Amino acid sequence: MKGLEKIIINERLVENIKHHIAQKDHETLIKLIDWVRAPDMADLMEHLDHEERLYLMDLFEAGDAGEVLIEIETPVQESIIRNLEDEAVSEIVQQLESDDAADLLGTLPYDRVKKIIDSVEDEVSERIERLLPYPEDTAGGNMALEFVAVQEDSTIKDAIETIRKKRDAVKNVYYLFVVDHLNRLMGVVSLKDLVLESPERRINEIMNPEVISVNANKDQEKVYHLFKRYDLVAIPVVDHQNRLIGRITHDDILDVIEDEADEDISLMAGVIHQEITEDSLMKISRARLPWLIAGLLGGILAALVINRFESSLERMITLSFFFPVVMAMGGNAGTQSASIAVRGLATGDIRLVLIWKRLFMEMKVAFLNGIICGILLGVIVGFWLSDYGLGFVVTLSLIVIILNSGFIGAAMPLVFKKFGVDPALATGPFVTTSNDIFSLFIYLALVTIYLRIAA
Amino acid sequence: MKGLEKIIINERLVENIKHHIAQKDHETLIKLIDWVRAPDMADLMEHLDHEERLYLMDLFEAGDAGEVLIEIETPVQESIIRNLEDEAVSEIVQQLESDDAADLLGTLPYDRVKKIIDSVEDEVSERIERLLPYPEDTAGGNMALEFVAVQEDSTIKDAIETIRKKRDAVKNVYYLFVVDHLNRLMGVVSLKDLVLESPERRINEIMNPEVISVNANKDQEKVYHLFKRYDLVAIPVVDHQNRLIGRITHDDILDVIEDEADEDISLMAGVIHQEITEDSLMKISRARLPWLIAGLLGGILAALVINRFESSLERMITLSFFFPVVMAMGGNAGTQSASIAVRGLATGDIRLVLIWKRLFMEMKVAFLNGIICGILLGVIVGFWLSDYGLGFVVTLSLIVIILNSGFIGAAMPLVFKKFGVDPALATGPFVTTSNDIFSLFIYLALVTIYLRIAA
Repeated sequence: MKGLEKIIINERLVENIKHHIAQKDHETLIKLIDWVRAPDMADLMEHLDHEERLYLMDLFEAGDAGEVLIEIETPVQESIIRNLEDEAVSEIVQQLESDDAADLLGTLPYDRVKKIIDSVEDEVSERIERLLPYPEDTAGGNMALEFVAVQEDSTIKDAIETIRKKRDAVKNVYYLFVVDHLNRLMGVVSLKDLVLESPERRINEIMNPEVISVNANKDQEKVYHLFKRYDLVAIPVVDHQNRLIGRITHDDILDVIEDEADEDISLMAGVIHQEITEDSLMKISRARLPWLIAGLLGGILAALVINRFESSLERMITLSFFFPVVMAMGGNAGTQSASIAVRGLATGDIRLVLIWKRLFMEMKVAFLNGIICGILLGVIVGFWLSDYGLGFVVTLSLIVIILNSGFIGAAMPLVFKKFGVDPALATGPFVTTSNDIFSLFIYLALVTIYLRIAA
Repeated sequence: MKGLEKIIINERLVENIKHHIAQKDHETLIKLIDWVRAPDMADLMEHLDHEERLYLMDLFEAGDAGEVLIEIETPVQESIIRNLEDEAVSEIVQQLESDDAADLLGTLPYDRVKKIIDSVEDEVSERIERLLPYPEDTAGGNMALEFVAVQEDSTIKDAIETIRKKRDAVKNVYYLFVVDHLNRLMGVVSLKDLVLESPERRINEIMNPEVISVNANKDQEKVYHLFKRYDLVAIPVVDHQNRLIGRITHDDILDVIEDEADEDISLMAGVIHQEITEDSLMKISRARLPWLIAGLLGGILAALVINRFESSLERMITLSFFFPVVMAMGGNAGTQSASIAVRGLATGDIRLVLIWKRLFMEMKVAFLNGIICGILLGVIVGFWLSDYGLGFVVTLSLIVIILNSGFIGAAMPLVFKKFGVDPALATGPFVTTSNDIFSLFIYLALVTIYLRIAA
């Protein structure tokens, strides 16, 4: 599989492949496969029917099949592996780097994994078994066991020989990690320095001893922060004794970032983790239903709140006209401040040190925006109903509502973070719903007081 | 500035630095500076007062000052540069890589940039002027002019000499780009191969001619997709004649991803691009006010819709109890399907090819969830008000509402994309508000028909 520059997966190529599969035209298909890069082929596979995918999988060599398979979206990937023989999966697993192999097996049921691990070479199975215990979202869960490490007292020449031995096993070499005789991480050498220095020099003379590493049990978000902060291409992963056990490369980190952003946006939108390419009706429905039902129960609570103020509503049915605007303002103001707090926590730009300063600023913003929106709405309501007293109360309500929602929106993510709950939850329907209820209560309570005074 | 492993910016360190600044204790401060890495120092600076920041800036050497400055959040960065002498800025600019220098100058007013450019060395100013014209969110706007390129007919030995010459100018070398005599990009060589092959071999024998490059005018989102798809560490940037003009490295791409995710989340939350660390009340207020006012006007529209059904409300005041739940269900269902569509378009997992399949699936999900939520709400309403006819109508309304919102939520991002509008807009308050209005209308219209029939 070589790949041509600027391949575009378009409808015509997809149709073309479908046609050749229908014709069982092996020869042309194998030529096409050779011509398309693995990630593009994965993309293309996602546009095919299940049977067509399996037909193509049969045509790949084991190495290529693995490269394509790991690039395919999880739901599609699972459905393909489910239909592959154990033997085929074993062959694919043998060709992959350890982290990719472990990821692929991670989607399979336990006894199938066991059977496959038993059937691969000892060296391969031993590697995979070392990776499987790490949770997916830790440094260990993202690391590969393929890297190049040299002893600190070796020479550059020795180091180059080590790279040569691992030429095929380690696809990309960016840094050489330096260890002592107990395999403890001592430093790092860039390939640039390796190229430029004399082959006789010792590694510990040219290495950078201030190497940034990460413990295998650390959360992947922490790993991402290290990559971003120090502009890393790869980071060595160590155990509790600072022994080098793996490395995480930049491409894994891109996936981590997308995972984390997806997670935030999912929570914000009230979807429990749904794969974008998921195509099971039941799975999608189940990912969304809990939030819809939570919203429904919140709405019933809101109905109970309104019920408490029924007499005010009977006196003035027009009060109900402004339920939507009151709820929208509370919801929007809350989501605005929550989203900034959540992003700040996710990117590491907000730390808990500055909380009070931050909350105070949010209150000032809410107050300013509350006054502006409050006056605007108050004037509209006053004119419409020719009731300027009511207009004034609406102004006052909106200021209180926006202050309240702004505070809840900004504080919730910080409180959640403090208690180890994902702050992004604070931007979701859960908090929007509470803001709706608070907002309705504030509005109806203030208006009821006004009606009593006016009566 | 050397840096120690695992530096943590904590309150104690910040207090310590503040104390030494107050004491004007240069000697200790310079030791501390030498001990903290540039990105950590930037982080630390964000926790200081304005005067303290300027005091520290004075202590840095020009090279260190630049490294720290480019890592500081934009609002803080701007306030620091505004207070630096032109001469100091010129010195800093001379020490930075071209893209960082251009970014830094990009925040300054035009005549100040001109003065600074006039004062730096010709070579530096010429580089910066070549970068300034590219819009920030294009490949050109993210590229650096520092890279290593060799002629295709040179030997590995020549190539190593070229790297040696650029050792200081190019911080990180990952690939060697290969060009012909017209400077057209012909291939790429990894440093691994450079290390392993014999020094006498010609570059064009060992290069990979299938190099992935990007045109300088392409959008940065496209660049990010290329990095992600092909697991790149750096990508060469070319002009329309395929001449090599720059390179973009993985660390720039991390910033691009955060930018794009921030943009999506901002639109989703109804915030016009707000820096997380922004501390100007006016700027934050202005970033949020437009959406609040849009929500307000949408709310007034909703009030007008309710107004049309006043006679139904007068007959049955309890109808207004369910405004919140009706709006919440419409809003949530819409945001759920919109967010999946938006993420899919952003990550490239959804392409316009499969639109119809996708919309059909969304409709099926909406129908299923609508039935479940509808029956639940219908039963609650029926019991509460002892009016099972109304309960049935509420069930029916909720099904129609969720179908409608699901359709709008899924279709809007795709329509927006088609017309070149950012799809993320479809998850924002704009569409939520329209869904609110549609939902209220559907509910009130169906209930009114029921009341007429029942009467």
